Amino acid sequence: MVVVLKKNTDEARISELTEWLRSIGLEVSRNDGEFETVLCLIGDTSHVDMDIISSLDFVEHVTRITEPFKSVGRKLHPNDTVVEVNGYKIGGGNFQFIAGPCSVESAEQICSIAKDVKNAGAAMLRGGAFKPRTSPYSFQGMRAEGLELLKEAKKQTGMPIVSEIMDLSHIDLFRDVDVIQVGARNMQNFELLKELGHTDKPILLKRGLANTMQELLMSAEYIMAGGNGRIILCERGIRTFEPYTRNTMDISAIALLKEKTHLPVIADPSHAAGISKLVKPLSLAAVAAGADGLMTEVHNNPSHALCDGPQAISPSEFAGIVKKAEEIRKVLNTR
Amino acid sequence: MVVVLKKNTDEARISELTEWLRSIGLEVSRNDGEFETVLCLIGDTSHVDMDIISSLDFVEHVTRITEPFKSVGRKLHPNDTVVEVNGYKIGGGNFQFIAGPCSVESAEQICSIAKDVKNAGAAMLRGGAFKPRTSPYSFQGMRAEGLELLKEAKKQTGMPIVSEIMDLSHIDLFRDVDVIQVGARNMQNFELLKELGHTDKPILLKRGLANTMQELLMSAEYIMAGGNGRIILCERGIRTFEPYTRNTMDISAIALLKEKTHLPVIADPSHAAGISKLVKPLSLAAVAAGADGLMTEVHNNPSHALCDGPQAISPSEFAGIVKKAEEIRKVLNTR
Amino acid sequence: MVVVLKKNTDEARISELTEWLRSIGLEVSRNDGEFETVLCLIGDTSHVDMDIISSLDFVEHVTRITEPFKSVGRKLHPNDTVVEVNGYKIGGGNFQFIAGPCSVESAEQICSIAKDVKNAGAAMLRGGAFKPRTSPYSFQGMRAEGLELLKEAKKQTGMPIVSEIMDLSHIDLFRDVDVIQVGARNMQNFELLKELGHTDKPILLKRGLANTMQELLMSAEYIMAGGNGRIILCERGIRTFEPYTRNTMDISAIALLKEKTHLPVIADPSHAAGISKLVKPLSLAAVAAGADGLMTEVHNNPSHALCDGPQAISPSEFAGIVKKAEEIRKVLNTR
Amino acid sequence: MVVVLKKNTDEARISELTEWLRSIGLEVSRNDGEFETVLCLIGDTSHVDMDIISSLDFVEHVTRITEPFKSVGRKLHPNDTVVEVNGYKIGGGNFQFIAGPCSVESAEQICSIAKDVKNAGAAMLRGGAFKPRTSPYSFQGMRAEGLELLKEAKKQTGMPIVSEIMDLSHIDLFRDVDVIQVGARNMQNFELLKELGHTDKPILLKRGLANTMQELLMSAEYIMAGGNGRIILCERGIRTFEPYTRNTMDISAIALLKEKTHLPVIADPSHAAGISKLVKPLSLAAVAAGADGLMTEVHNNPSHALCDGPQAISPSEFAGIVKKAEEIRKVLNTR
Repeated sequence: MVVVLKKNTDEARISELTEWLRSIGLEVSRNDGEFETVLCLIGDTSHVDMDIISSLDFVEHVTRITEPFKSVGRKLHPNDTVVEVNGYKIGGGNFQFIAGPCSVESAEQICSIAKDVKNAGAAMLRGGAFKPRTSPYSFQGMRAEGLELLKEAKKQTGMPIVSEIMDLSHIDLFRDVDVIQVGARNMQNFELLKELGHTDKPILLKRGLANTMQELLMSAEYIMAGGNGRIILCERGIRTFEPYTRNTMDISAIALLKEKTHLPVIADPSHAAGISKLVKPLSLAAVAAGADGLMTEVHNNPSHALCDGPQAISPSEFAGIVKKAEEIRKVLNTR
Repeated sequence: MVVVLKKNTDEARISELTEWLRSIGLEVSRNDGEFETVLCLIGDTSHVDMDIISSLDFVEHVTRITEPFKSVGRKLHPNDTVVEVNGYKIGGGNFQFIAGPCSVESAEQICSIAKDVKNAGAAMLRGGAFKPRTSPYSFQGMRAEGLELLKEAKKQTGMPIVSEIMDLSHIDLFRDVDVIQVGARNMQNFELLKELGHTDKPILLKRGLANTMQELLMSAEYIMAGGNGRIILCERGIRTFEPYTRNTMDISAIALLKEKTHLPVIADPSHAAGISKLVKPLSLAAVAAGADGLMTEVHNNPSHALCDGPQAISPSEFAGIVKKAEEIRKVLNTR
Repeated sequence: MVVVLKKNTDEARISELTEWLRSIGLEVSRNDGEFETVLCLIGDTSHVDMDIISSLDFVEHVTRITEPFKSVGRKLHPNDTVVEVNGYKIGGGNFQFIAGPCSVESAEQICSIAKDVKNAGAAMLRGGAFKPRTSPYSFQGMRAEGLELLKEAKKQTGMPIVSEIMDLSHIDLFRDVDVIQVGARNMQNFELLKELGHTDKPILLKRGLANTMQELLMSAEYIMAGGNGRIILCERGIRTFEPYTRNTMDISAIALLKEKTHLPVIADPSHAAGISKLVKPLSLAAVAAGADGLMTEVHNNPSHALCDGPQAISPSEFAGIVKKAEEIRKVLNTR
Repeated sequence: MVVVLKKNTDEARISELTEWLRSIGLEVSRNDGEFETVLCLIGDTSHVDMDIISSLDFVEHVTRITEPFKSVGRKLHPNDTVVEVNGYKIGGGNFQFIAGPCSVESAEQICSIAKDVKNAGAAMLRGGAFKPRTSPYSFQGMRAEGLELLKEAKKQTGMPIVSEIMDLSHIDLFRDVDVIQVGARNMQNFELLKELGHTDKPILLKRGLANTMQELLMSAEYIMAGGNGRIILCERGIRTFEPYTRNTMDISAIALLKEKTHLPVIADPSHAAGISKLVKPLSLAAVAAGADGLMTEVHNNPSHALCDGPQAISPSEFAGIVKKAEEIRKVLNTR
């Protein structure tokens, strides 16, 4: 951390700050320039609240030069974390497909899609029971009943199930859900993250629409700080000025997050662009960039879907993606 | 709403769609062009789920031409809503200052600042008890205890209190809070919004970092749909590429929201830029743009603050802003 | 195009507008709703200036529902354009690697890198002679002399050369350059685009940092409108709020542009992220998403480079990317 | 500037770098931490090319902690620059209105608007002769002929004229133009900036759609480096995700730029939002935030305008803004 002090700052105040910084375990090196004094702080600054230092009236600005996260970072944990879900492994060279409908609508629908995506190569079944919708007038999901139908699909197919939680008060309803998904809009719902840190469930944490990679890692740090290290990160597109796509998939994030963290990183190409024609190219791009898995929306009959968006693809399209994705993984893994 | 159909779409499918649209109360006008067929839907389209139509494989794209909100819009409710908080009115020509520290830290601190900002002209006291912090290692607020201290400050000064809720499970703790604030990170916490729609408390709804004005209005629509129309909207800066400021205050939003909705719109210049020197110019700019109020972070002693960010100002600086703001309001209100 | 008129607009003005629209060859269908009147315009609206209609005081808003471009669009030209450069083809299933240093620095440097990248599989040599630098104090390129050195490298290797033009007054200097590159900052330098439309050179048109895909296509339309259809589009990253990467490569743009236009689309993974470690994953992702080529910065000795940014890779790293990229192309091209 | 070196970097390479840094006049202070070595560079780093240091393979990252600009910054030039145009002063407490049509269309039109805006309080006349348009099919301006008509309007009214240059080859045509405007799309047309640095004309430099404040200042630095210090900066809105407005006016930029630079800063509220109803609130907000002037699009008859966008206002609306703006300036200037 580098602290730039204003010119002509009172020496007594500099000493006071320096002593306080030393008292919390940091080495402080001082450098006096023509226009400012620069303090260089060496040591573990992850616990230092930058805002407190910034708020001092003699401080010009503060810049972090090391990452503010710790448990999720590679520096202290260089080896890949492998998250295991009912025998299926993600991370550390293991890759999984997660697929299913946007929303659970009926037993027939979810069981039929589950069988289809399993046959096509998916390991896990996704399905929305609680749906975050921009409009109060849009379908809000089958809620608790939807979770029951997912369990029924699990019984019939043996697939672990993945579903999104929208509030910590629902946590008991998710007892039989295998992977709890935190959606983009809840990535910084810190009360929920803390609660999930106390469970033993794998958490699929989606990047928020306007959140930086660092913020995503800090949200994972919240979960790990609570004791739960079974976290799968998911890139699903960020909000930009481009109107042709619903979001802009940040393909760099997949490769770069894997440099920064030991946690597995998957991609959701369906929500990233919001256009079904783009699901295939974006899926293959994510695999080529090093993703540890793909989460894909698959419908069985788009004309009757209550919520499957314009981004859902058919089971046979999904099967085509699985095939090509596995071939690309082979290209990456051979010398 | 305009639905563009792909060239050579089967007539039977067009009829099916047209009939369904008519069955939900819309007039449908069809226009055949060289490259596409365009359906123009006239009527109340706020209840129509665009995604369902978009997901049809013969639909090229769908564009809304009227707003998706209804209760919060001016079309059906042309007159300004006035939100009254213990006798203080906001909206419809009424303007209020809300001020206080970032975080409640002690009885002395909050009571002292309360008196200072009241003397300077503030009507209501703000103070954070539950704090959303990016890092799990940063101070998370005094929580329930902080709310108690706010109530003490209210007792001593008579000022209504404003504090941020972070989860719907805390709603009972906010029984004696006069205005419940929904922070930027919770603007699309739909479960929380629904719950707040069933209370009779005024809600201060902040715009999310990456949320459009339309999404802000849709979140207000969630609260109104539950029966609670006492909503104050708050512009507090959006996330852009500019690194000099923490966020970019969207000054246009203040003027434009007031065109679109009858609800009062205030500004939070402290969080908008994250720089104390900018609080004054941004405050005056917001007033000049037509804001119905200002919410400002005021500290009493920045060197000892646990969380007051670099954006907090002193009580005397706040008093200076109040004075100029009132003069600018006079300029706007005289012919 | 859909024109929404304000409620209670004078019939005479509606007739006047309608007649004018018909006089420029459009069909106009009128639909009266409760709150507004909607005119649906059918026909070729690419020549209609939306701003003129928007500026009428009785118009609420105007929305395009068909694309404003024509010559570059797939509707009238469904087949892929193949751009040929000295026998090397790009587009229509043909893929090329373009590689070389950020800046030309000396005859030895450019000729040595040229041989290296040719051996590694590059078809064309890139090298900056005129350099757009944010700071006037940064190295601005060797300019005309740099172009001479590129020609020398071409003579020694037979590789066609690609270099960036910064002003239309330099156009004569580019007589022997095989592909003229328009950089991101000049994507909307319309005077330059018009001039390039009158040349017979292939143009490599990079997307601007904050330009939409539609604006990129409109800039290509400028060149085609002048008579030059030999255009290669290039995605090189857009500006977003994410600070870890210099820009955010818009991987969706590669796939989506190829849906919208018949022109070839390549990617520049070096500038997209600005980090050399990301060049390989981004290159392979771009290939997997369907790119028609890659343009990559390759250095020979980074410690002595005058301008090679942190995004340049070594010739052997480049050779590794070429190998994997070709294998992924094989995966895509087999059934 | 702070340079973070990778752990275990060879001592010989650190020495080599340190010596080179000292040879270009910087003091280097070294700090060894557990995970990295940090070099703190003190002195004038504005001439240091960060990219060269970043590209070294043992450098983890480089952060500037002082501004890269020099001539335009306040550190060495604390007093406000006053730009004088034919007797009208901008900056240093002097405020001017610049108004006129989007495009010059005829002698009658430009002379009539010139008289109107002069009567309403404008000091200078703006009018577009060369128009940057996204589509090649849109009206491109009257070009050289438009400049002649502007001169005619100047002759009739005595108002200095402001017009946009689109290419350096047109510079001779602007001999009689009093203020040369560089549009948003040309803010980083460095060849043009260099050329303008050699003229003695006042330059009105608009911020680019996706350019940071620092980049705007660096572009001004280009002009000053050439010898021309008569520069007026202009905030005109940046590109964000918000679709209700064409651009998002960055109101903070007005106040913050004035902290960073001694150059005058004006606002263009017409282009910022692209909506005529917002021109008044945005104008008054810009004044309240400390702008040194306003540049406003005024039409005389919108129904016949060839290019006046939806953002133009009438002369009487403009007069209303002038009146209120002057009253707000009085509020700011009195104690």
